[in-house]
Amino acid sequence: MSSEPFTKLVLIRHGESTWNEENRFTGWTDVDLNEKGKKEANAAAEALKGKYEFDQVYTSYLKRAIKTTWIVLEGIDRMWLPVERTWRLNERHYGALQGLNKSETSQKHGEEQVKVWRRSYDIPPPSLEDSDERHPKYDPKYKDVDPALLPSTESLKTTVDRFLPYWNDTIAPKIKSGKNVLIVAHGNSLRALVKYLDNIGEDVITGMDIPTGVPLVYELDKDLKPIKHYYLGDEKEIAAKINAVANQASAKK
Amino acid sequence: MSSEPFTKLVLIRHGESTWNEENRFTGWTDVDLNEKGKKEANAAAEALKGKYEFDQVYTSYLKRAIKTTWIVLEGIDRMWLPVERTWRLNERHYGALQGLNKSETSQKHGEEQVKVWRRSYDIPPPSLEDSDERHPKYDPKYKDVDPALLPSTESLKTTVDRFLPYWNDTIAPKIKSGKNVLIVAHGNSLRALVKYLDNIGEDVITGMDIPTGVPLVYELDKDLKPIKHYYLGDEKEIAAKINAVANQASAKK
Repeated sequence: MSSEPFTKLVLIRHGESTWNEENRFTGWTDVDLNEKGKKEANAAAEALKGKYEFDQVYTSYLKRAIKTTWIVLEGIDRMWLPVERTWRLNERHYGALQGLNKSETSQKHGEEQVKVWRRSYDIPPPSLEDSDERHPKYDPKYKDVDPALLPSTESLKTTVDRFLPYWNDTIAPKIKSGKNVLIVAHGNSLRALVKYLDNIGEDVITGMDIPTGVPLVYELDKDLKPIKHYYLGDEKEIAAKINAVANQASAKK
Repeated sequence: MSSEPFTKLVLIRHGESTWNEENRFTGWTDVDLNEKGKKEANAAAEALKGKYEFDQVYTSYLKRAIKTTWIVLEGIDRMWLPVERTWRLNERHYGALQGLNKSETSQKHGEEQVKVWRRSYDIPPPSLEDSDERHPKYDPKYKDVDPALLPSTESLKTTVDRFLPYWNDTIAPKIKSGKNVLIVAHGNSLRALVKYLDNIGEDVITGMDIPTGVPLVYELDKDLKPIKHYYLGDEKEIAAKINAVANQASAKK
């Protein structure tokens, strides 16, 4: 376990969005970072600056991840780095629940049902109707994506299924070619990657939360097998953030 | 001349930088936008929003152009658009003059000589020494560029020569494939493009100034020959900006 890593892959979950405060299901809804989210992105940059160099950045089509990317690139003075956006790094699609207040949803569908949708591996929330204007096929950002691939709802399982082809076809070959990669994405698209890298079981991954705005470093060997992983930044602050995420999740259960 | 254009190519020159106020030769020096520059970028977004759609954005490796791109993409709510950065869209390299105050340079080299460097087509300023830490080969942003291609000084002619391969190999094929393109770049890299598109003579292009932060639309036919071009925005303001650029240039002569 003491071998020198082939590469260090860095993951950042975007900071808080304007809908965090409103406690609404977000999914593919394209909301911006709030002020706290911008500060989190700046803190991520501070933790990386002068210590980590990158050749390629990947992020989603959603502005809370893109804005986080911009703040990090400006903060580490690497604005020229190539950034590739992909819908396959988007947050899990939350189906017909997107936009709904979480406590109202609990009242309507029952707390147990909402817990199942939030924490099961393979049970998606109700689908968006094809005619629903929130459906991604009506959103110009997906106009070049095969409509058959666009989800109307997703479980964590189907999020993994649509992310992995991008990992295998695009990101992994880039890393194997010797490039240092930064991925700025969302709670569930990063869970999808972490599950794959560390071969985590379905029951375990659904309970794992990556804190927002804290760079997560994966040291990988030449076959992209993890040697170890760790967060960057002040240990106490990171521990507090991980606890906060866990508490938030349990309060929502 | 009344034929329907095949495409509308939009060019934006980045807004004022922090060195505008200091009146220093900038070139490849990587200075940020100043507050006026950010406002100019916002005004460009305002002029485009809801009227122009893009599929692909090109910009330089320099943060004043990248920042302008980000402000425009956020302003038109198209942050997900693919952005390709290239050193070939960089500003003209100003050689050993980079970083020097313009009036000091006039005192040292004589106003006539500085005028020649500023306004001739093919006479570059003195080169940076190979050992000069300002040389692009020491800058991490160019580490993947063949060092033989990196300039130590440039005339407008050599700027044209290094930009055109990128136009021919990358941008023009993209436009011909039916994509709507936005280019956010610099005074001289945009001059290089405009000279090529409109087949402008060497003596004329050196006197032509594109105002900052005003979208310049080129309507092109299917062979990418210009049908017509025009600026977007308030006509009076644009006229004032064009005059200001012309006066600034003549004051510096």
